[in-house]
Amino acid sequence: MAERTPRILGAHREEIRAAMSDALRGDTSLLRALRVHVGLEDDEGRSIDGMGKLLRPSLVLFVAEELGVSASAALPAAIGLELVHNFSLVHDDIQDQDRTRRGRATVWARHGVAEAINAGDLMHALSISVALRAGGEAAATLAAATAEMIEGQSLDLAFERRTAYVDEYLDMVDKKTGALLRCAFELGGIVAGAGAEIRGRLRSLGRAVGRAFQIQDDLLGVWGDGDVVGKPHGSDVRRRKKSYPVAASFSRAAAADRTRLESVYAKEPVPERDVHWVIETMERLGVRDDGAAAVRGYLAEAEAGLEALPLSAEGKGEARALLGYLAGRER
Amino acid sequence: MAERTPRILGAHREEIRAAMSDALRGDTSLLRALRVHVGLEDDEGRSIDGMGKLLRPSLVLFVAEELGVSASAALPAAIGLELVHNFSLVHDDIQDQDRTRRGRATVWARHGVAEAINAGDLMHALSISVALRAGGEAAATLAAATAEMIEGQSLDLAFERRTAYVDEYLDMVDKKTGALLRCAFELGGIVAGAGAEIRGRLRSLGRAVGRAFQIQDDLLGVWGDGDVVGKPHGSDVRRRKKSYPVAASFSRAAAADRTRLESVYAKEPVPERDVHWVIETMERLGVRDDGAAAVRGYLAEAEAGLEALPLSAEGKGEARALLGYLAGRER
Repeated sequence: MAERTPRILGAHREEIRAAMSDALRGDTSLLRALRVHVGLEDDEGRSIDGMGKLLRPSLVLFVAEELGVSASAALPAAIGLELVHNFSLVHDDIQDQDRTRRGRATVWARHGVAEAINAGDLMHALSISVALRAGGEAAATLAAATAEMIEGQSLDLAFERRTAYVDEYLDMVDKKTGALLRCAFELGGIVAGAGAEIRGRLRSLGRAVGRAFQIQDDLLGVWGDGDVVGKPHGSDVRRRKKSYPVAASFSRAAAADRTRLESVYAKEPVPERDVHWVIETMERLGVRDDGAAAVRGYLAEAEAGLEALPLSAEGKGEARALLGYLAGRER
Repeated sequence: MAERTPRILGAHREEIRAAMSDALRGDTSLLRALRVHVGLEDDEGRSIDGMGKLLRPSLVLFVAEELGVSASAALPAAIGLELVHNFSLVHDDIQDQDRTRRGRATVWARHGVAEAINAGDLMHALSISVALRAGGEAAATLAAATAEMIEGQSLDLAFERRTAYVDEYLDMVDKKTGALLRCAFELGGIVAGAGAEIRGRLRSLGRAVGRAFQIQDDLLGVWGDGDVVGKPHGSDVRRRKKSYPVAASFSRAAAADRTRLESVYAKEPVPERDVHWVIETMERLGVRDDGAAAVRGYLAEAEAGLEALPLSAEGKGEARALLGYLAGRER
């Protein structure tokens, strides 16, 4: 289902691109590697259009404009956040040993682990320099969200050694995925000078969006259509990812299934026969339906949160279109 | 030669320790790992005294006090800087595959590479949160110094693949070692509200100290006494570190020696016979004396820089004692 890109994601792509390019300007090998990583350039330094959805900076700009501030005034906060997101991807790819992202070789696959650690560290430092142009409060909010995201990464890593229940999974998601999404909404409020109450509502909205977004992603990792999603059916089971379907199965399963699930996820590689058993078990336990219901629930929470914000009717419509797009997205 | 610890390094150890402990407080596995890394706690969470010299935060506090601001007001900037220094060590240890530091297992050796990347990233984010309490300018200066340090790491890494001449080596040192030392001096000035001229002088002083400090360290890596320094004679040659003596040899050598140096540094491991040849060649080329003269020169530059700063006579004396200590230190 190719849907039309929501206006929120399209409205300021060129300004975001120009500002990212500006933040990563310079003739060092690290900066070149970062420009390739974020999709500004190819290996030969030629300009390309490979930046992805730009969800987080687009949200900052959308909220800021809706609350009465120009997109250009909100740009430093938006770019600071996008740089944090991208630095975390550089380090994620090392941690997950992923050799490709967005169809391109990852930084570590191309330049080695040591230089990829440097590249991520540099982008992290640059994110602060940029965010500080939006003021100390924006930078502090971004740094706190970054710390929370990293704690989420650490929890996710711990789940490789043991299986999490749904409540632990949600805590991890609120940090790993939710921290930067909450930050996106809140930064829009901060640059617009919003008070504590509005900022709290923006954060709640971000949390609901983060949960819907991540659970949807996790469902696609097991039941997605490989041709569309880029992941074959069952791929997260083969990768032994302890994503939502595993946590939900674990929470629902009786002792016998739980023991067998643990033993399957302890195998490397997971035999194809076991992959099928896991998917069948998840379906038998109703986890796929649970997940779809959870996504719908968090989306409804997000829509209610939207209603409670002082946005224009047009802005609310655009935000709902974005939510629908994110919920229906197949990649 | 056990020298007495200079007053600058001893004056505020307890406050620095308490503030580091505060910055790294919390009951997550990452924060526990960081407290062990910086020498606040052992593996069982018992308090230990393993924090090292604390050179950088001590310099911030010294400069701030000399320029008329209380140490406690300068503490956030000092701790922010010390956290940056320590995050870089966590990532350095991964990059250099060093399994121990200060006699303790490194974070990656204990918790794996993925979690050590997270631990460094978390400390980086926390450094910003802390530094921001000293204001936007302090945080911006720290973030810029961090970026420069990382560019220096990247240059140092590139020198593993090719040999650098002395001017390239100094450029690398000004970034990798110098950036945070310059930042230490400058942060002291910033929290004291110093103007552009004083800040420029503080930076120059930091640059000279950084060069003296690093060249001295590099000389000890080749000619240090293993019992005192913790590195056996010739250890940096065995580790194929392209430190000052190699750059100076390369700059001084005729083509034949240069070719042989390159070929020796391409071997892994370097045969003991070649280690001896390298050290003899360095001595024959006068590199050890060159290095000692360079250290003296940069120390003289630093002392002249000190004289030009509006410090008390007592403060200047303490700073000279610190320089002497750093220059004479055997570890």
